[in-house]
Amino acid sequence: MRTPQRSVMRTQITEWEDGVASRADDFLAVEEPLQISVCGRSITVTMRTPGHDRELAAGFLWTEGLIEEPDQIVSIEAVADQTHKGNQIAVELRDGFPQNSGEVRNFVASSACGVCGKASIEAIRSRGLRPVQSEFKIDADVLCILPDKLRARQEVFGRTGGLHAAGLFGASGELIALREDIGRHNAVDKIVGWALLDGRLPLSNCVLMVSGRGGFEIVQKAITAGVPVLASVSAPSSLAVQLARELGITLVGFLRGRRFVIYAGEGRCVGERGVAVR
Amino acid sequence: MRTPQRSVMRTQITEWEDGVASRADDFLAVEEPLQISVCGRSITVTMRTPGHDRELAAGFLWTEGLIEEPDQIVSIEAVADQTHKGNQIAVELRDGFPQNSGEVRNFVASSACGVCGKASIEAIRSRGLRPVQSEFKIDADVLCILPDKLRARQEVFGRTGGLHAAGLFGASGELIALREDIGRHNAVDKIVGWALLDGRLPLSNCVLMVSGRGGFEIVQKAITAGVPVLASVSAPSSLAVQLARELGITLVGFLRGRRFVIYAGEGRCVGERGVAVR
Repeated sequence: MRTPQRSVMRTQITEWEDGVASRADDFLAVEEPLQISVCGRSITVTMRTPGHDRELAAGFLWTEGLIEEPDQIVSIEAVADQTHKGNQIAVELRDGFPQNSGEVRNFVASSACGVCGKASIEAIRSRGLRPVQSEFKIDADVLCILPDKLRARQEVFGRTGGLHAAGLFGASGELIALREDIGRHNAVDKIVGWALLDGRLPLSNCVLMVSGRGGFEIVQKAITAGVPVLASVSAPSSLAVQLARELGITLVGFLRGRRFVIYAGEGRCVGERGVAVR
Repeated sequence: MRTPQRSVMRTQITEWEDGVASRADDFLAVEEPLQISVCGRSITVTMRTPGHDRELAAGFLWTEGLIEEPDQIVSIEAVADQTHKGNQIAVELRDGFPQNSGEVRNFVASSACGVCGKASIEAIRSRGLRPVQSEFKIDADVLCILPDKLRARQEVFGRTGGLHAAGLFGASGELIALREDIGRHNAVDKIVGWALLDGRLPLSNCVLMVSGRGGFEIVQKAITAGVPVLASVSAPSSLAVQLARELGITLVGFLRGRRFVIYAGEGRCVGERGVAVR
């Protein structure tokens, strides 16, 4: 897994430490807009870290409900355009731009966040998400090693301290895929897009570990990919927990050291001594 | 400063620690959609933590460029509506819905993120932001005490571990205003909206301290409020640094303990021994 070359930028900064200032070179995580077009129509711009752009676009279309079958995608290519410097992705769909879909109308006025930008509250809930059905189990001891594994493989974060990550792990804690991005949602979309383009959806036997919070839209995206267990080092929101409970995804938060909190779907977490409640 | 009652929700969770699971009550940061209407037209929905909704709406209109003068706002009120349970805010503007503004057309298809959701790359740069002009200086030693002050006053975070904060501080490090939200952008919009409704814009003599990253759209929002110094405990992105340098806002990152990094506008950081480079 190589670090995409455009994901890091060098710059000169001033470092202040205990009263002494000095100049130094530093690395920044690159943030640039990516414009996604479907059948010639620009549908969104997301601020992202360049790299894995095709996966990001594919994942975005999937997690936002614009496509429902992987083979709807005929092509998905970066646009060779001097003006936008590789910041445009063009997607062609088998049946053309899905004009008749109510989903799409909401989506066109939507955003990479999956929620904000929608012009009515109804649009948020009208996604028709299907419950996650998976017999997958994860050992509690395996869960505990995931944060260190994720961090150890975050190449760009190590140089910039500024990127979110999403990692896909198997039942034994083996890393299947990892993506980094300045945006939490994008890191997840890149993972889902990778799985989609690789014919791996639904991700019924995986844990998705994210570096940031487990908010509503992250839970929503994980559900569209059929992920049975979503884990995070941080806190989920009220709506994230509610959605997870409604749609049967296991939601783990505050995964740090030898401790975590299960907010939904605890039946999938097992261990030598079980997670049976005392 | 009281904690809004709707900002925290109680729930039952399973806590796993070193092989032993137990049930416990826990608090979640509330995340709910807020629909913002201007002159009867719904323009966006943002996922936010309830509380200070009027300030959030006012700040959003301001930082997104939908209004240019505080007195354009005639009224800004929560809609009494059983269906949406206080999750709607209606804004009336003096001159009606600003149909003729190019800004607004972009904005209607935009989002609470200030960037994502815009349907073209051009829309992002076409804001016509004005450079920050302020003779404000901040002592390096004062900067160093801000993170602890911010954290100490984060009421909801203390109970849920799940909220972002934005804090406005004066030159001596005195806290002027603090707002919390599940969304980083919303916390900043609530601060800007508070300042707007209180007749305090531009915030030419303040430091804005944010708990999350200093991304492009946070820098953009701070610039619209005339904030001369933006500080964060975390890393900025490449585009954030670029925008800060172009428009003359001081951008400080990795503000932790007795160390920080100045990415732009170092002239505003002074100290007993100065920040003169060795």
